[in-house]
Amino acid sequence: MSDLGRLGEDGIIDLFASGGVRPPVVKGIGDDCAVIGTLNGELLLWTADLLMEDVHFRMKTIDAGSLGFKSLAVNLSDIAAMGGSPVAGLLSLSLPSSVGEKWLREFRDGFMRCGAEFDCQIIGGDTCASPDRVGIYVTVIGTAPEEDILMRSGQIDGHDIWISGTPGLSDLGLRLLTEGIETGDENSAAAVSAHLTPQPRLALGKRLARAHLASSCIDTSDGLVRDLGRICGLNRVGAEIHEETLPLPRAIGGFEAPLLECALHGGEDYQLLFTAPTGKRADISAIGDVTRIGSIGSDVDGIVLVRADGEREELLPEGFSHF
Amino acid sequence: MSDLGRLGEDGIIDLFASGGVRPPVVKGIGDDCAVIGTLNGELLLWTADLLMEDVHFRMKTIDAGSLGFKSLAVNLSDIAAMGGSPVAGLLSLSLPSSVGEKWLREFRDGFMRCGAEFDCQIIGGDTCASPDRVGIYVTVIGTAPEEDILMRSGQIDGHDIWISGTPGLSDLGLRLLTEGIETGDENSAAAVSAHLTPQPRLALGKRLARAHLASSCIDTSDGLVRDLGRICGLNRVGAEIHEETLPLPRAIGGFEAPLLECALHGGEDYQLLFTAPTGKRADISAIGDVTRIGSIGSDVDGIVLVRADGEREELLPEGFSHF
Repeated sequence: MSDLGRLGEDGIIDLFASGGVRPPVVKGIGDDCAVIGTLNGELLLWTADLLMEDVHFRMKTIDAGSLGFKSLAVNLSDIAAMGGSPVAGLLSLSLPSSVGEKWLREFRDGFMRCGAEFDCQIIGGDTCASPDRVGIYVTVIGTAPEEDILMRSGQIDGHDIWISGTPGLSDLGLRLLTEGIETGDENSAAAVSAHLTPQPRLALGKRLARAHLASSCIDTSDGLVRDLGRICGLNRVGAEIHEETLPLPRAIGGFEAPLLECALHGGEDYQLLFTAPTGKRADISAIGDVTRIGSIGSDVDGIVLVRADGEREELLPEGFSHF
Repeated sequence: MSDLGRLGEDGIIDLFASGGVRPPVVKGIGDDCAVIGTLNGELLLWTADLLMEDVHFRMKTIDAGSLGFKSLAVNLSDIAAMGGSPVAGLLSLSLPSSVGEKWLREFRDGFMRCGAEFDCQIIGGDTCASPDRVGIYVTVIGTAPEEDILMRSGQIDGHDIWISGTPGLSDLGLRLLTEGIETGDENSAAAVSAHLTPQPRLALGKRLARAHLASSCIDTSDGLVRDLGRICGLNRVGAEIHEETLPLPRAIGGFEAPLLECALHGGEDYQLLFTAPTGKRADISAIGDVTRIGSIGSDVDGIVLVRADGEREELLPEGFSHF
């Protein structure tokens, strides 16, 4: 394992964590967005994500328009996880000569369509040549009312764990795309579209935040277990996931896929994973497209999958790590 | 020439310019920073820059610490060009396995040193593996009082053109580094240090802005002629540069370099190039380390170098273009 592999992604980020922050910065490294106060009377949220060819995507499994859409969507998902509204984005691109103007225009159209759909103005950026691979770097700012903001940390002991959408759907879609399988059925179309054009859960995030329903929240970019592990680690608690309540992607005829593994460890869903007091169950269920999948416990060690027969299995993060 | 070469860097950026902006965005594509109002009572400035191995730098000509410093400095230079003060930065890195923890720690130290020296908190980021090259993506926000902000556009006809520092010094330093020449003398040390660790002109930018001395301003990242061309194009004016007033890097004994070409076209100086009414000459000279190099004229066609003997030569941008 390389030096950097030993450090890991979180270890590398920690190298740059300089300790405390000072005003006007409210929150630095360690949440979906950095928080700075205040832009036009609300807290300023700020996030940046990079997408690298052959690391985050392969040109043969994603078209230019979808890649454009997704590049912005994954940033908006960070704003959603804080209960915020996007304001504006900057795009930086490094482009190899193998990419032509047609590809670039389609990328642009997808990127701008995502901005228009989710009310995020694209107001600048930077571009350069790349020796060989496409690199996409996006930064987005948004705002959220100070009293409503969602964070990864909170008083969450004993709270329910909820997830929006269908965990693992994007991973299933990627498996279909990688194998080049086009079944034409509804289930595979849903999986492929979850992977290519994830929909940032901005409306859900805002609804949870405004109604003070969630006690912590993160977006699932690296897999349910890994992202839940981040919330648990930060708050020094454990978690139980109940297998029988966990929604799985629908099976696709003629395509064998480990659906439970997809749901637990598959990355790039960009759904919201959040905790809430048990008293909020009715209010949260009423929102729709959210499922209660387990509970937080300070007496639970790590993250445990409780099987239908009561058997307990500790889950370790197997989510995608780049190093 | 490739498709993208034909479009050029500015053409690619224009592809993403969606027309007007709406509140809270004040200014989008087309200046050193995007402007959004208001963070803590001042306008919010926002910039992003990427530095790509083998495009912007080569590992053999820049050490990790200098690269870290420079990665943040080039972003702070954009804040300086608007007369602003930095607030915070996000860093995203893509790292190949050839880079080890020692390199990364030195990079981090240089990056953080620049942040500490210029009062810019580093509050987050993102990291991923890279198949082969280092990619560095930095975004910085800052603030400037609304009434003082410096822009590229302005009423500048008949105004003087000023530049800080010594244009071409960084290019000369790069030539020394590329040739592997270490003369040990003061002039070459100054050139190398201008290239490796450019000092963002934040104090100068603020002073020009607060005293309302400059009518337009840009930082020189792509060469004097190219960056002056941006100001001229935006304001539909031409410019004369007077050769006898143009400061040149000091010659380095035993190293032949085209000093005038360095000064006119060499990139990465990260100095401020600004215009000002002729009535401000004394106030601006009093600041120090700034030189009046010519004048803006709506009747001048393009950018003209006026030689000592009065001969006029049209200058076309030969600054570094990546495509």
